[in-house]
Amino acid sequence: MSLCVAVLGATGAVGRTMLRVLEERSFPVGELRLLASERSTGVRIEYRGQAHPVAVPDEDAFRGVHLVLVASGNDLSERWTPVALRMGARVVDNSSAFRMHDDVPLVVPEVNGERLSARPRLVANPNCCAVPLAMALAPLRGAGLTRVVVATYQSISGGGAEALARFERELDSPTAARGADDPPPLAFNVIPMIDRLEANGYTHEEMKIARETRKILDLPELPITVTSVRVPVRVGHSHAVNVTAERALTPDEARDLWRASAGIRVLDDPEHGRLPMPVDVAGTDDVVVGRVRRDLSHPGGLDFWVVADNLRKGAATNAVQIAEQLTRAEVASR
Amino acid sequence: MSLCVAVLGATGAVGRTMLRVLEERSFPVGELRLLASERSTGVRIEYRGQAHPVAVPDEDAFRGVHLVLVASGNDLSERWTPVALRMGARVVDNSSAFRMHDDVPLVVPEVNGERLSARPRLVANPNCCAVPLAMALAPLRGAGLTRVVVATYQSISGGGAEALARFERELDSPTAARGADDPPPLAFNVIPMIDRLEANGYTHEEMKIARETRKILDLPELPITVTSVRVPVRVGHSHAVNVTAERALTPDEARDLWRASAGIRVLDDPEHGRLPMPVDVAGTDDVVVGRVRRDLSHPGGLDFWVVADNLRKGAATNAVQIAEQLTRAEVASR
Repeated sequence: MSLCVAVLGATGAVGRTMLRVLEERSFPVGELRLLASERSTGVRIEYRGQAHPVAVPDEDAFRGVHLVLVASGNDLSERWTPVALRMGARVVDNSSAFRMHDDVPLVVPEVNGERLSARPRLVANPNCCAVPLAMALAPLRGAGLTRVVVATYQSISGGGAEALARFERELDSPTAARGADDPPPLAFNVIPMIDRLEANGYTHEEMKIARETRKILDLPELPITVTSVRVPVRVGHSHAVNVTAERALTPDEARDLWRASAGIRVLDDPEHGRLPMPVDVAGTDDVVVGRVRRDLSHPGGLDFWVVADNLRKGAATNAVQIAEQLTRAEVASR
Repeated sequence: MSLCVAVLGATGAVGRTMLRVLEERSFPVGELRLLASERSTGVRIEYRGQAHPVAVPDEDAFRGVHLVLVASGNDLSERWTPVALRMGARVVDNSSAFRMHDDVPLVVPEVNGERLSARPRLVANPNCCAVPLAMALAPLRGAGLTRVVVATYQSISGGGAEALARFERELDSPTAARGADDPPPLAFNVIPMIDRLEANGYTHEEMKIARETRKILDLPELPITVTSVRVPVRVGHSHAVNVTAERALTPDEARDLWRASAGIRVLDDPEHGRLPMPVDVAGTDDVVVGRVRRDLSHPGGLDFWVVADNLRKGAATNAVQIAEQLTRAEVASR
């Protein structure tokens, strides 16, 4: 009835949130193995009131493991996901290492959860902006989406625990001098660049959001352009979204489609201060949509605003939801 | 050789910046009259090393005044701009009270400064986002702009001195409880609503940006859709801009057009950390453009990022530039 679960990258912002979500959702964890790179040697993390040591991964660490949740970056995933698979585990991988592989499903359960029914051994968990974007766009597909223009407002925690620590240091020393080689300040600033630049002038983050959203929606040709921006918010990614469609959607139609969709909450009464904001959405699992309006610049256009907790639905919660569906049969049979 | 100048709304964030810009640019101020609402009674503001009292406006306050710079909100402007005009002053009005009046020029000197050659008695100064947007779009007009999609990242100071004070209080007491009727927190949050809602679902701020940009560019039919968002940055408004045009512009062409335009600085080497950010642009008068790339979602599309100091080029500097051109003949003849 319970599983041996390993979390790779357990000490990071996403890894710690995965442990919290496993607890909250009473995931049937029998044995728990916490794994991370050498930097985390000696760290212990509490799970269900008990401190668990964090180990450096080796082959033995994956022996007898039913499920690996990968919360690390690509390098650890590329090294250990094949090992875990070879040793018989199922892997839900939040790194971007395998997301665009043709034979690896990239899943948001509310959108394309049917990809889990074949019980694939490796499932990729999407980028933290691609999850809420795909959730918000999926119910609108029937209108014939023709183009999507997105500007993001991504929180510091999207850069991981180290970015969060740097942000807090900057808040504590607001007058510290900035060296020529220092990265741009996170506090009291807006940085229009996340991840490295690709040859086409977009950042890798922008292209991940576009490519992954298309793959999740199964709309491989959908034109999407993204501007990815870091804002000084601790948790919660926001998105200004403009869509055009063959058949114009009214705001009322769109809101009805979203209200009928699992995992989406419509919060759209801005005159009474009811509008999606990271300060309210952080800590929840909802994808919250508001500020819905007919786009005055295009006959088939619609503007709206989407907020989700990047550590939860954008990462950990989505991964645990996938794991729940993947392991349901195993859990039932044990 | 020097003028009697009144500043209405002198104690606000824009008013104080106007005084600084008048000093910096050695504007020929002979006599200076600082005016503001009753709330500022007793306040004194330094100008050129001398403390000036702030008075509540009355008819006498405008007697003999050559130039009024209006840095207040609409109510004070609607009350006193007609008085100042009747008494023979020229007025440069940063409020939105008269911006969309057909007979009032709305001017960004680098874009439509020719509107000043007739020496109008009243000139409106545009919204703090419309200034940089019009500056960035003007050089691209030759390509035949067909649509503009904008998402803004507007700093706290755009909400005035009171918003800035509230922001600082929130930073000092991050754990203060939030009452049900309190406005949403400014610190560590992103608020997708600035100003009241219009009937079409856009905010008044979003519609001001769209309408004013069209008027400045003299493209009354240009389709523009805007999402206006407050971010926790003290000074400096940023804009994610997507344009489509009849003739596709390459990033190199666009950068060349901007480099040839007064008041615009291209900062577009993101791989070496050279990209426009409020932390660097605040305190300068440039409109800074970067992250220029061919929009992969549209054959005639271009994406870019624009930052300007909302208190300076977005308000005070633009107003003083207008005043300089308006009063040049007067100053020369005295």
